[in-house]
Amino acid sequence: MSATAVTVACVQTDPVIGDVAANTDATVTAVAEAADVGASLVVLPECASAGWAFRDADEARASAQSLEGGATVDAWRQVAAERDVWVCGGFSELGQDGEVYNSSVLIGPHGVASLYRKVHLWNTEADAFTPGDLGFPVVDTPFGRMGMIICYDAWIPESMRSCALAGADIVLAPSDWVPNPRQDPALPPLAHVVTMAGAHQNQLYVAAASRVGAERGQNFIGSSIVIDPFGWPLATGGDEVGMVLAEIDPIGSRPARRNDPFNRPLADRRPDQYTIDTPAEEQS
Amino acid sequence: MSATAVTVACVQTDPVIGDVAANTDATVTAVAEAADVGASLVVLPECASAGWAFRDADEARASAQSLEGGATVDAWRQVAAERDVWVCGGFSELGQDGEVYNSSVLIGPHGVASLYRKVHLWNTEADAFTPGDLGFPVVDTPFGRMGMIICYDAWIPESMRSCALAGADIVLAPSDWVPNPRQDPALPPLAHVVTMAGAHQNQLYVAAASRVGAERGQNFIGSSIVIDPFGWPLATGGDEVGMVLAEIDPIGSRPARRNDPFNRPLADRRPDQYTIDTPAEEQS
Repeated sequence: MSATAVTVACVQTDPVIGDVAANTDATVTAVAEAADVGASLVVLPECASAGWAFRDADEARASAQSLEGGATVDAWRQVAAERDVWVCGGFSELGQDGEVYNSSVLIGPHGVASLYRKVHLWNTEADAFTPGDLGFPVVDTPFGRMGMIICYDAWIPESMRSCALAGADIVLAPSDWVPNPRQDPALPPLAHVVTMAGAHQNQLYVAAASRVGAERGQNFIGSSIVIDPFGWPLATGGDEVGMVLAEIDPIGSRPARRNDPFNRPLADRRPDQYTIDTPAEEQS
Repeated sequence: MSATAVTVACVQTDPVIGDVAANTDATVTAVAEAADVGASLVVLPECASAGWAFRDADEARASAQSLEGGATVDAWRQVAAERDVWVCGGFSELGQDGEVYNSSVLIGPHGVASLYRKVHLWNTEADAFTPGDLGFPVVDTPFGRMGMIICYDAWIPESMRSCALAGADIVLAPSDWVPNPRQDPALPPLAHVVTMAGAHQNQLYVAAASRVGAERGQNFIGSSIVIDPFGWPLATGGDEVGMVLAEIDPIGSRPARRNDPFNRPLADRRPDQYTIDTPAEEQS
């Protein structure tokens, strides 16, 4: 094991909508269990604090919490400090601007390192949440440079690309993945297809934690995954509460990734040849 | 079968390097065979005219041909007219500027409709070819709006994204796909992962024709694929000479694609939140 290698855990919980106390307890227990088995980095699902399927913004607001002083983030801060681990998890954030965001936070032993607000809201999410306004921040940590995306962001390739171009070695992806229509059981779910493609195309690790269970008629598939920078899964989860563990080396893999003779998809970009700025009104 | 549905054929040939006459004959025979079984659109592999593994630019130049008057393109033009089909195929192009490009052409019954020059050169290709300078053109046809990419272009998500933002209903992908290191036989090859992701993320069809055989130590995997706009394969090929057939409906599927309540990854883009213009020198 390389001196820079670490164990990442992707946790699968089954939050109860609106029950912040119970959901927070479940995540803290899971982080401690992950630390017990050697994880240095723990990724929790999207909306792990209060659930996801809110009917409207008022209901989402009722269980949203601020980054400073919110119960869930405070609990994650405490367990990260106590267990000397890094925690990334999704929560309903009440912004200082009064808006409610579908957010994720990256917390180290010394406190909050990064906040991300989901940029691409899926389906009816815009009824409950305000679209993210922080771009795709990437921060340096002892385990490498980390970006965050949330669930459906992986469906839009600019999300992981933005993390990669800001220097990310790994993308952490709190998610609430749902079943795909017409899923062929011989093929990976589309959540794996898009994250494997993103890892390969951006030459970075992906650690995605996806919830299980169901909420107001919406089923979730779990299927958490850790993907290496070549695009291959290192570990995948089922559809039960639990966790997926994998050894990763975001820093130690840099020379090999940057000098891969086989593929150099980041270095080979040619922005002057792309059509990426067509206004939306011209697309239909 | 919808009135706008058509059958697409993705042809797998095994070109001999430098033997333009034999390679051209093989492609013309294949196009005729595809027409015989009802195909209206036939996709041929990358570098179908003269092979791929050239040692240097001089060798590539020796079998390159111009768009106007070149033997292969003329033969494709003739069979397209005779059989009333559309043909997309890859060839070594000698540009009017004297440069040699890894190009593809889209030809209808009435002649050449579009030329594409591979933007992203893979591995040692830059020893033989000049990088493409035409962006990602998309043209209207009776079967829908068509863009082209070539092989490794699919590894860079901006390629299919550019086609989609220019309005493509389908991306045609002449390819010479190679084996992946550490391929798990239970998973699709990365060529399928990136093209399935691209189809899903851009809500368009992909028709990729990949060669078989080997050339100067480089093996090719065939594995041609036709993918629907949800990302699922409609048909896939093996590693033998032959063809893959699928029914597609690029025009008829537009309303469903544009009004998909489940995913709207094109409409949901938020360019103001992306980091996509970081200069290359800042990435390392």
